[in-house]
Amino acid sequence: MSAKAGGPDRHWMAEAVRLGGSVRGRTAPNPNVGCVIVSGGRIVGQGATAPGGRPHAEAVALEAAGEAARGATLYATLEPCAHPSDRGPTCAELIPEAGVTRVVIGLRDPDPRTAGEGIAMLRDAGIAIDVLDEPAARASMSGYLMRLTDGRPRITLKLALSIDGKIALPSGESRWITGEDARAHVHLERAHSDMILVGRGTYLADSPKLDVRLPGLEDWSPRRALLTRGEAVEGWEKLSSPQDVYRLHDVNDLLVEGGSATATAFLAADLVDRILIYRAPILVGEGRNSIGYIGLDLIADAHGRWRASDAAHLGIDRLEVYERVRSESGDEA
Amino acid sequence: MSAKAGGPDRHWMAEAVRLGGSVRGRTAPNPNVGCVIVSGGRIVGQGATAPGGRPHAEAVALEAAGEAARGATLYATLEPCAHPSDRGPTCAELIPEAGVTRVVIGLRDPDPRTAGEGIAMLRDAGIAIDVLDEPAARASMSGYLMRLTDGRPRITLKLALSIDGKIALPSGESRWITGEDARAHVHLERAHSDMILVGRGTYLADSPKLDVRLPGLEDWSPRRALLTRGEAVEGWEKLSSPQDVYRLHDVNDLLVEGGSATATAFLAADLVDRILIYRAPILVGEGRNSIGYIGLDLIADAHGRWRASDAAHLGIDRLEVYERVRSESGDEA
Repeated sequence: MSAKAGGPDRHWMAEAVRLGGSVRGRTAPNPNVGCVIVSGGRIVGQGATAPGGRPHAEAVALEAAGEAARGATLYATLEPCAHPSDRGPTCAELIPEAGVTRVVIGLRDPDPRTAGEGIAMLRDAGIAIDVLDEPAARASMSGYLMRLTDGRPRITLKLALSIDGKIALPSGESRWITGEDARAHVHLERAHSDMILVGRGTYLADSPKLDVRLPGLEDWSPRRALLTRGEAVEGWEKLSSPQDVYRLHDVNDLLVEGGSATATAFLAADLVDRILIYRAPILVGEGRNSIGYIGLDLIADAHGRWRASDAAHLGIDRLEVYERVRSESGDEA
Repeated sequence: MSAKAGGPDRHWMAEAVRLGGSVRGRTAPNPNVGCVIVSGGRIVGQGATAPGGRPHAEAVALEAAGEAARGATLYATLEPCAHPSDRGPTCAELIPEAGVTRVVIGLRDPDPRTAGEGIAMLRDAGIAIDVLDEPAARASMSGYLMRLTDGRPRITLKLALSIDGKIALPSGESRWITGEDARAHVHLERAHSDMILVGRGTYLADSPKLDVRLPGLEDWSPRRALLTRGEAVEGWEKLSSPQDVYRLHDVNDLLVEGGSATATAFLAADLVDRILIYRAPILVGEGRNSIGYIGLDLIADAHGRWRASDAAHLGIDRLEVYERVRSESGDEA
């Protein structure tokens, strides 16, 4: 089992990562895995975890490949499962049965029911195995991985801001800070989230539908949650505090959409892993702040917590992505 | 006289633009012109307007070229001057005398003492002329051009902001929002400004030196100005209001460094042409806003005024450049 692999392996793994990423937000509590089966230098079968988590990506890809899987190499972003389920056979059994002779794995599965067991079963069946420990595979399943390692979803905070960091005029008027391209991107982020959360103020002011309004993705609309100490609302799950995210055992990716009090509560609790800033090229001046007091008493203490990881143009607006910097142990940096 | 020119002309003009841009902030009230003289496919002389505005770029380049200017092509970012001065001969006379046979001009000079007269004098002397109307040449002298067309300097507002648009904690503590690379870039912007302005609050709180602390550029420190209705301060020029910029007849480029009240006053008066945002990857939360009320009553009215024109990484920080969008007539868009 080598930790390194050549160019072709990286190439096919990237394809598998792309497939797995495409179903993010649809598979919880299962991981969003991608799989391609390659024979003679071309893909003979591919798949991703189906909505709801079953069938698994490997089963979908093997079904598509049929007899072509004999002697082929299977690329899976995550270690194939070793735990039997009422909803299907284990992938670690299916793969040798289909005649696959080599398996390249993006990442070991931290799920204690599989962790290393899938690899052991495959090896016992005479299959050659490579584990790439691929950062792109890790990133594509970061919600699932965080749930398993930290016991809560990966939490993304979305803010639509002016250059000067405002979310609205003093009156609350905020239509529209950002343009259509940015708003379409928000809908894509929603589609890749298992749950979206807003605060009670935003719920009452905007009664947002929080659905996905993208052609072909309408039925990808995630579960909706309200952060409130008050009454629950029909059709909405209720979180009494940000810490309630530790009760969400079936959510890999949570998108926090605001408003300011909700953003502040999650940031103050250090329960934000990623920030999406949709930045419009406008100045608001006097207006509503995006966040309030988050426990900061010195500017120096604000540094080292966030890393600008990505940026993109969205029409005249700009997307800035920041990721929380944490040490390997999971503590803050 | 053609409005189009081939690849080599663009290439040499780009060199001239680079030279002219390098002395921006040192030549006011004269334009910061760049000039290269090309013969046999190589540069035989080059120059930029000297500090204080004389000698002109063409004179410097001709002096460097000497006899090599005979039969050569001269590239100047601006139409050579046609008005005699106590401080030197006109460039439109010098150029034919040196034996130059062709002149490529980046931009016509709107100065009424030259406007077209320089071109006419050169043509009368038998010189072939091309005017490129080159956007890069226009951009490199935008301060000079704005002073001639609008009667005031080009005004740049600098703000060092957190992700959420704050300039300091509620206490006023702001050391440091941005890092060393960003602060070095501010010093470069200072070096390319004829004058720097701060408000009285910033003067009293920080007593900033506003000098240029870059190796080799220490003596490029620009004139300092204070926006105040109160007493003038020794060593500082005084502006009673943003509208006083129309009295600055010898300033091409003005850099407004803050604080918040000063930024707000210039923005409310629509007297900012360019904004430099030095954005640190930090969240401040409760803190001091960068700007206050600028006359905005609807978010829709905030749109169409600013265009994101450039962006760059400066260490872990990011520079965002925004330019005011104005119609051709000079009115607001």
